[in-house]
Amino acid sequence: MFLPVQKKAITMTLEEQLKHKINFKTKPLGALGLLEDLALQIGLIQATLTPELKNPTILVFAGDHGLTDEGISPFPKDVTWQMVMNFVAGGAAINVFCRQNGVNLKVVDAGVDFDFPEGVPVINAKVARGTRNMRREPAMSAEECDSAIQKGRELVKQEAAGGCNIIGFGEMGIGNTSPSSLLMHRFLNIPIEECTGSGTGMHGEQLTRKMKILKEISEKYDPQTPEATLATFGGLEIAMMVGAILEARDRQMILLIDGFIATASVLTAIRINPEVRDNCVFCHSSDERGHKLMLEHLDARPMLQLNLRLGEGTGAALALPLVHAAVNFLNEMASFEDAGVSNK
Amino acid sequence: MFLPVQKKAITMTLEEQLKHKINFKTKPLGALGLLEDLALQIGLIQATLTPELKNPTILVFAGDHGLTDEGISPFPKDVTWQMVMNFVAGGAAINVFCRQNGVNLKVVDAGVDFDFPEGVPVINAKVARGTRNMRREPAMSAEECDSAIQKGRELVKQEAAGGCNIIGFGEMGIGNTSPSSLLMHRFLNIPIEECTGSGTGMHGEQLTRKMKILKEISEKYDPQTPEATLATFGGLEIAMMVGAILEARDRQMILLIDGFIATASVLTAIRINPEVRDNCVFCHSSDERGHKLMLEHLDARPMLQLNLRLGEGTGAALALPLVHAAVNFLNEMASFEDAGVSNK
Repeated sequence: MFLPVQKKAITMTLEEQLKHKINFKTKPLGALGLLEDLALQIGLIQATLTPELKNPTILVFAGDHGLTDEGISPFPKDVTWQMVMNFVAGGAAINVFCRQNGVNLKVVDAGVDFDFPEGVPVINAKVARGTRNMRREPAMSAEECDSAIQKGRELVKQEAAGGCNIIGFGEMGIGNTSPSSLLMHRFLNIPIEECTGSGTGMHGEQLTRKMKILKEISEKYDPQTPEATLATFGGLEIAMMVGAILEARDRQMILLIDGFIATASVLTAIRINPEVRDNCVFCHSSDERGHKLMLEHLDARPMLQLNLRLGEGTGAALALPLVHAAVNFLNEMASFEDAGVSNK
Repeated sequence: MFLPVQKKAITMTLEEQLKHKINFKTKPLGALGLLEDLALQIGLIQATLTPELKNPTILVFAGDHGLTDEGISPFPKDVTWQMVMNFVAGGAAINVFCRQNGVNLKVVDAGVDFDFPEGVPVINAKVARGTRNMRREPAMSAEECDSAIQKGRELVKQEAAGGCNIIGFGEMGIGNTSPSSLLMHRFLNIPIEECTGSGTGMHGEQLTRKMKILKEISEKYDPQTPEATLATFGGLEIAMMVGAILEARDRQMILLIDGFIATASVLTAIRINPEVRDNCVFCHSSDERGHKLMLEHLDARPMLQLNLRLGEGTGAALALPLVHAAVNFLNEMASFEDAGVSNK
């Protein structure tokens, strides 16, 4: 048998085949920019030339933080449960964007300091009524942190069983930029000042004070493993998100990563399983100080740069149409040959 | 009568009322970034606190350029009509993104050097079979240019009559970054080298040669009015887009502005009616050199930064979900008071 041309075609790797498919669409080479990178990434994740997005879902994890006793947020802690009730009523930004973009939204109580009334559609995965004040003691025990991780894994298993292959992660937790800054500081070895931003609105002296408290906390502990670091400095919603991220990677789902807190969760998950990075779509570059540094460290080029700093998964919900666009051009656009268009 | 509080409320300007509505949504102040600016802009355009987007439409204007005789594009001129046939068959990027995002797409022959067969759904607004080679003579006569502008206005009138209040503009024309660079150079008084980029793929010596030709052309003519500048250096699809932009502003539509060529058309339209700027949503920052400078000059912060450089209106189609998001959060999100969430 003598079939050299066919044989050559057959031995192209999937990556080469995807690049060839992208390059011969009716457009100048590279003219769809980041959408081309995304199409390649998704093809590789799903191991196919014709990827599909099924049942896009965002899980919003809510939790409280003992550290709010130290005045590190301008909003009172009660806003966590109040905003969960707002999610349930459909009135928050994440509700609006999920409705618009066809995203299945689920709200998870990872550790809110409130008893939600019977019948309220919040998934009860409560590990504790918030973390401890880490200025005094570690935020979580090892057992609590592990429980949060396992519950996060379990929730993603359920979504995968329901046919979801693209999942975003959001959070609600007054005070949760502080644990995220600490995780970033410890995992990336970047001075705490560069990891600490204004969150929902800390400026001037308030911000200086927040930085001072976080520095004091960082110096107080020296955990040696990613899990211990997470337990010491994290949050219940963050730990649950870490578990969800790990499980979603294990199931080869596409991970839609939101802003500062979600990216801190990714940093943590990557310390446990570096392959997590391959499945992450970084949805936006937040206005929260530190987020751009995290993204640089991850060699990530975010899909959106809208100066968002809201969390809740809003950046993930807003970026979803771009992910659809990447998949759709790969599947639907004509090639030069199909369309009878002259190539150079 | 003594109603000081109500009276104060009544005397708030629309802009103040919109800002108040945006600021008291359940989110930290300013946390939706550019979407907040966009919601304000759209409220002001439509003169309402509850804007609506109706029948989003993109007009793609196609035209040929006599200057392609000088080898200023790596693609042959025939690609213009071939890509129009690709649009009609639904196989181009703009088709994919319009289908995905619910955009009504119309393809207009402004001046293609080809006779489209009967029955092909291309709007026939042909002014001529392409422009003249402006290295030798002006691209258009004053009459041709005016005819293109008027036909552009007429097309937008028809869309407005059909209920459209948000309209995007795309283009297809091999060689049309060159006229756009020249218009930018003349209107912004920026050296031609900074206005000239690689288009669909001119690099190194080819690009240097393109710049040299454009410089020679710029020095050959000295038109004194915006219309004469457009006729001398423009394209039929560009002139038609200028007319469409002017008409859409007169009808207080939202204008979705795509990349380099569409922004050059906006620069031209603004010289004729400066109020055009108020209605423009700049959809993306293109990879074509010069586009960022144009956007800076217009004090524009684009919605997307995806390294696109394809034209066709693709940036406009991709940005539409973000425009919907701006309108939807303004209309649908709960206020702190509505949701019973504590404000600072």
